[in-house]
Amino acid sequence: MATKRRNIIVGQSGGPTSVINSSLAGVYKTAKERGFHKVYGMLHGIQGFLDEQYVDLSTQIHSDMDIELLKRTPSAFLGSCRFKLPEIHENPDIYEKIFNILDKLEIEAFIYIGGNDSMDTIKKLSDYAIIKGHEQKFLGVPKTIDNDLALTDHTPGFGSAAKYIAASTKEVIRDALGLSYNKENITILEIMGRNAGWLTGASALARTEECSGPDLIYLPEITFDIDRFLKKVKELVHKKKNVVIAVSEGIKLEDGRYVCELSGGADYVDAFGHKQLQGTAAYLAGYLGAKLGCKTRGIEFSTLQRSASHMASRTDIDEAFMVGGAAVKAADEGDTGKMVVIDRVSDDPYMSAAGIYDVHRIANNEKLVPRDWVNKEGNYVTEEFIDYVKPLIQGDYQPFMVNGLPQHLVLKKK
Amino acid sequence: MATKRRNIIVGQSGGPTSVINSSLAGVYKTAKERGFHKVYGMLHGIQGFLDEQYVDLSTQIHSDMDIELLKRTPSAFLGSCRFKLPEIHENPDIYEKIFNILDKLEIEAFIYIGGNDSMDTIKKLSDYAIIKGHEQKFLGVPKTIDNDLALTDHTPGFGSAAKYIAASTKEVIRDALGLSYNKENITILEIMGRNAGWLTGASALARTEECSGPDLIYLPEITFDIDRFLKKVKELVHKKKNVVIAVSEGIKLEDGRYVCELSGGADYVDAFGHKQLQGTAAYLAGYLGAKLGCKTRGIEFSTLQRSASHMASRTDIDEAFMVGGAAVKAADEGDTGKMVVIDRVSDDPYMSAAGIYDVHRIANNEKLVPRDWVNKEGNYVTEEFIDYVKPLIQGDYQPFMVNGLPQHLVLKKK
Repeated sequence: MATKRRNIIVGQSGGPTSVINSSLAGVYKTAKERGFHKVYGMLHGIQGFLDEQYVDLSTQIHSDMDIELLKRTPSAFLGSCRFKLPEIHENPDIYEKIFNILDKLEIEAFIYIGGNDSMDTIKKLSDYAIIKGHEQKFLGVPKTIDNDLALTDHTPGFGSAAKYIAASTKEVIRDALGLSYNKENITILEIMGRNAGWLTGASALARTEECSGPDLIYLPEITFDIDRFLKKVKELVHKKKNVVIAVSEGIKLEDGRYVCELSGGADYVDAFGHKQLQGTAAYLAGYLGAKLGCKTRGIEFSTLQRSASHMASRTDIDEAFMVGGAAVKAADEGDTGKMVVIDRVSDDPYMSAAGIYDVHRIANNEKLVPRDWVNKEGNYVTEEFIDYVKPLIQGDYQPFMVNGLPQHLVLKKK
Repeated sequence: MATKRRNIIVGQSGGPTSVINSSLAGVYKTAKERGFHKVYGMLHGIQGFLDEQYVDLSTQIHSDMDIELLKRTPSAFLGSCRFKLPEIHENPDIYEKIFNILDKLEIEAFIYIGGNDSMDTIKKLSDYAIIKGHEQKFLGVPKTIDNDLALTDHTPGFGSAAKYIAASTKEVIRDALGLSYNKENITILEIMGRNAGWLTGASALARTEECSGPDLIYLPEITFDIDRFLKKVKELVHKKKNVVIAVSEGIKLEDGRYVCELSGGADYVDAFGHKQLQGTAAYLAGYLGAKLGCKTRGIEFSTLQRSASHMASRTDIDEAFMVGGAAVKAADEGDTGKMVVIDRVSDDPYMSAAGIYDVHRIANNEKLVPRDWVNKEGNYVTEEFIDYVKPLIQGDYQPFMVNGLPQHLVLKKK
């Protein structure tokens, strides 16, 4: 009788990042090195898996060159999903179906790359396996530009988004400064982060020896007081003409309303019940323009902040690869129901290593920017914040340029 | 008696580009090589010059390394302006003032880097000099991301903006595709170009071997029919789920209204009387969302498309440098009232050279995308269009990365 094949399956879930495929590359390479037979990729995460949508990754990745190209490809190579598994007691059939497919594919380990919501999937599947006596191992690999996962020093994807935001902020500031001569000019940058201000705070990295950086930074952790905001901007714009303000898409008034709701714009709620936010910068630009009578411009970094892999951080890509590989190693060594985390071993020089935590301790806890990493006035981040983020944006992977544009590895469907 | 000193002054005007400083570098380097004594830079163009705001560029540029850094710095290093000289007969005093300052600084040549409006300045100043018997030479160096200058094959700044747009479009498409599973999803990209659709058309370069590119492209040259648009998008989104549409900020309805005016958004008119346009993508995203009931997202590339020098085209940077140098050469050889242009010498392999034209033939003529470079339906560009743009986005200048971010050369004020 043939021995059971050691296969592994990997999926990607939640919002994309510039480096989520570097984790996929890490899973693939490490699985091959550790003697796994087939490495399957589920298409569009657990949602596609339930429709038996998967590929054998050896039909997609043919060389080390492909691995390198995958590391430089933004967004989920395998496709992502926003799909929340029901509680086990609510719908045992769906779990039975998942484990039937896993058995059919002779899967030994299931690796899921995602954020808070994805770790919930790992928790439920590993719990179910233990309850029912299934032998598959379930491991989570962190991923989110928002950096809001607890227990890990930071999340893969955050550093590259932070780098893109800081680099773009520098360029936008040059643009605004070059144009204005004795004229008041306000630029408002809208940055992702519903509840956590890590990315918005990262705009402070644009403050360098040759750039003053943003003048004001408003995080969602701090209640937004529009009157104080107006007063502060008015003071500043009289003093220095050119004012650049970074705001989180998630800033909220004391009454709980999002600032972007003041414009009466359309609301959209995603599958996890999260309200989709857009239009904060546009609203504030209109508001300040009307109140102060000067030129204003709202700029949303939009999905580019999570997909501009041409400006990814080498540290981030390497760490994303590392945690992908570490998840395979952990599964291979018998771990289950765990998420790989990044531990900061040293600040100067910066060093990090993969650690591992029980996924029950992680899921659905949002890590916010601590109050003492924001200044007293609540309109800028502190040096501690900057020192924390700075190592994470260092180094580059040159994109592979083909016909003048960054090349990506994309899924070949049969 | 000392011989008269041969000094030169250079200024930058109008909207910034990623490569306007490469032209400045070309002016500086060539002026030094040709034995000019001092190279002055006027601050904020002719407007700052009238306030006697200028610098000796040797206090700013100390090495070949600085020249290279300047080539990688977006937006106007010297500051720009939007300032229209009056007709000579309307205000002769302003002309007398300009020539007094030029005489005081012993200026032999006046180089102005700018777009249509800037060439008007060169025309007026050279006309005035000839009428009044002044000996200074006035030369224009083209610059505009919009590519709407006549007589030059293309304008410096266009290629880099086109490259940024195409690269970002590829990344945004990866992002949108990765997320959507069996769900309809529409992304609308808003691209600069008030009257000319060159940049919006350049989004078609994102159609590569691994990317389908935008599905529909709407240029301002073609009247926008919102009913036909809705019908077309409805068809497409049922067929392929994920639809990406590139629109110019300047698309207009048959009655002459801009699409962005339909939202009732604020109007802003700049110093040249140009209406500032913003919100086209946001309006159309809301419109399609309401009509088709699917997820939509509007993305404005905003000022990043003209300031993202980290994604500049090597061809563009080199040509910008070349036309800066060619203007100095022309002035040195006695030309005046001329603009340097780029002639396309060969398509394959692509080769270009600097040519020169009388500025009277150029100013205030906008070059639009020819109708036969847009398909019959008016919703995509043709192969001829793509073949024209493709050589202009080739090659890179690696940014000089310092502490993880692209470094810029910035003006040191005393």
